[in-house]
Amino acid sequence: MLTVFGTVALDTTRTPFRTETRILGGAATFAAVSANVFSKTSIVGVVGSDMPPEHLAALSSKGLDTTGIVTVEGGRTFHYDSSFDYDLSNRTTNKTELGVVAGFDPVIPEEYAKSDYVYLANNDPKQNIKILQHFDDPKLVVCDTIEFWINGARDDVVEMISRTDGVVINDNEARLLCKEANLAKCAKKIISWGSKFAIIKKGENGAILFTSDGLIFPAAAFFLDEIVDPTGAGDSFAGGFLGHIARRSRSDFSVMKEAVIYGNVMGSFAVEDFGVRRLLGITKEDVEERYTKYRNLVQF
Amino acid sequence: MLTVFGTVALDTTRTPFRTETRILGGAATFAAVSANVFSKTSIVGVVGSDMPPEHLAALSSKGLDTTGIVTVEGGRTFHYDSSFDYDLSNRTTNKTELGVVAGFDPVIPEEYAKSDYVYLANNDPKQNIKILQHFDDPKLVVCDTIEFWINGARDDVVEMISRTDGVVINDNEARLLCKEANLAKCAKKIISWGSKFAIIKKGENGAILFTSDGLIFPAAAFFLDEIVDPTGAGDSFAGGFLGHIARRSRSDFSVMKEAVIYGNVMGSFAVEDFGVRRLLGITKEDVEERYTKYRNLVQF
Repeated sequence: MLTVFGTVALDTTRTPFRTETRILGGAATFAAVSANVFSKTSIVGVVGSDMPPEHLAALSSKGLDTTGIVTVEGGRTFHYDSSFDYDLSNRTTNKTELGVVAGFDPVIPEEYAKSDYVYLANNDPKQNIKILQHFDDPKLVVCDTIEFWINGARDDVVEMISRTDGVVINDNEARLLCKEANLAKCAKKIISWGSKFAIIKKGENGAILFTSDGLIFPAAAFFLDEIVDPTGAGDSFAGGFLGHIARRSRSDFSVMKEAVIYGNVMGSFAVEDFGVRRLLGITKEDVEERYTKYRNLVQF
Repeated sequence: MLTVFGTVALDTTRTPFRTETRILGGAATFAAVSANVFSKTSIVGVVGSDMPPEHLAALSSKGLDTTGIVTVEGGRTFHYDSSFDYDLSNRTTNKTELGVVAGFDPVIPEEYAKSDYVYLANNDPKQNIKILQHFDDPKLVVCDTIEFWINGARDDVVEMISRTDGVVINDNEARLLCKEANLAKCAKKIISWGSKFAIIKKGENGAILFTSDGLIFPAAAFFLDEIVDPTGAGDSFAGGFLGHIARRSRSDFSVMKEAVIYGNVMGSFAVEDFGVRRLLGITKEDVEERYTKYRNLVQF
């Protein structure tokens, strides 16, 4: 089993073309929905009683195990309000309301403890370190982190990385975390902290995988004519990446390279509609079809 | 034959690690040296009597036809003085001395007029349009342009593009030229002006080829551990691209995709030393070896 821990949120997303209010979002949601297309996935998180039941029902209906989502009666769900500019490349945060996420003491359902694969989405690194102790003996633990934690708790982020097997991180956040402009040097630093690999995501410029053995895999992004909402692309990438590894039960370099492409593919689906809407609508076949399309696209 | 028209320069390049003064450079030099590894190439340009004869001799010694380089006695060679920051990604121009390039009325040696392939490097678009009339019936004409001409003579740039078959351009210059943030939309606009294809170069993020048939080829950049001097990477890309097409005497999509990779490969060699030094030292075999290495790198 693959377990994803992180925020399950309500997002208000504003583009110059449309505004969607309090739709289902959150790093864990994107990653888990994405991973679940590949392999049985469970999700750990917390929501308030303002989370519409149909949102959680939509997740369950896709086979996602949502037993790990705690609802705090009378609490408010994490709410993120942001706006994109005209070309959808720059995001401005309008409001972040932590709600029930603040002070959440996560409980891992007993049956999740046996998970072979664990993904720690952009969460408090201290909480991530703590939650890891609840798992018996996962084969692969991967984490992401964001500017908020790098600026506020860099030592904890480094400590978290030292306890995980792999890091999936945005280019600019890697630079900020590593205090280093060159991405290869960033990856080396992350690996020097104890991670076996680092994947640096570069948005529309694809991603690069670096391993502790010195292997490298640069991948162009899947090409899309139109993007509707870039929210969650990176989390969906991570979900697809880990989901494929869980499906193969292997994480050698060759499987990791395929996983990077599946990550790209899932990120490309995520941005085709607001929130997780597109991801909830796709099938295994859609994913394989786009994977093949990607292979043909980059072939020469 | 492939003819390259553009600046043959003396560059002063300053990185935080080393400064090299008045070394051989210029857009046409990089492009021609790069193209000549693939196919017989000639170069058209102008230098002053301060150009050290050993620089031109170095070009001829590699089999490059330099008959088209005019030396203006008593004149000064185009001189470009620039500095890079610590991570070699931002360049600051310290000084641009046009010298003999200002008011140069290019003469095309008669034997060049039969060229099948013409590359117009970052030159005055009016001069580029004019020089095209001297060629009999080239199969493929490709141009590049830079911020200087886009800001100062945008209409001429568009006119030049309408008379060429393909455009090779940096991402930020494409955005500036097309007044459009999205690169796919930039490419569409360039193609709408009459070009059959547009290649958008993204530096360390690779390049994307767009054709008028709606075909797309995104390519990750060749991965290098260390860069010495980024000068000329884009021009070397263009030279490798057109050089491979000239060698194959074909420019269908499949050859163009290979050509993009050869362009990447040549760009990756160019940045391994100051100026054209590294390009002058490589062989066909080195190029094929790196092409194969690239293929293995991106394969999954």
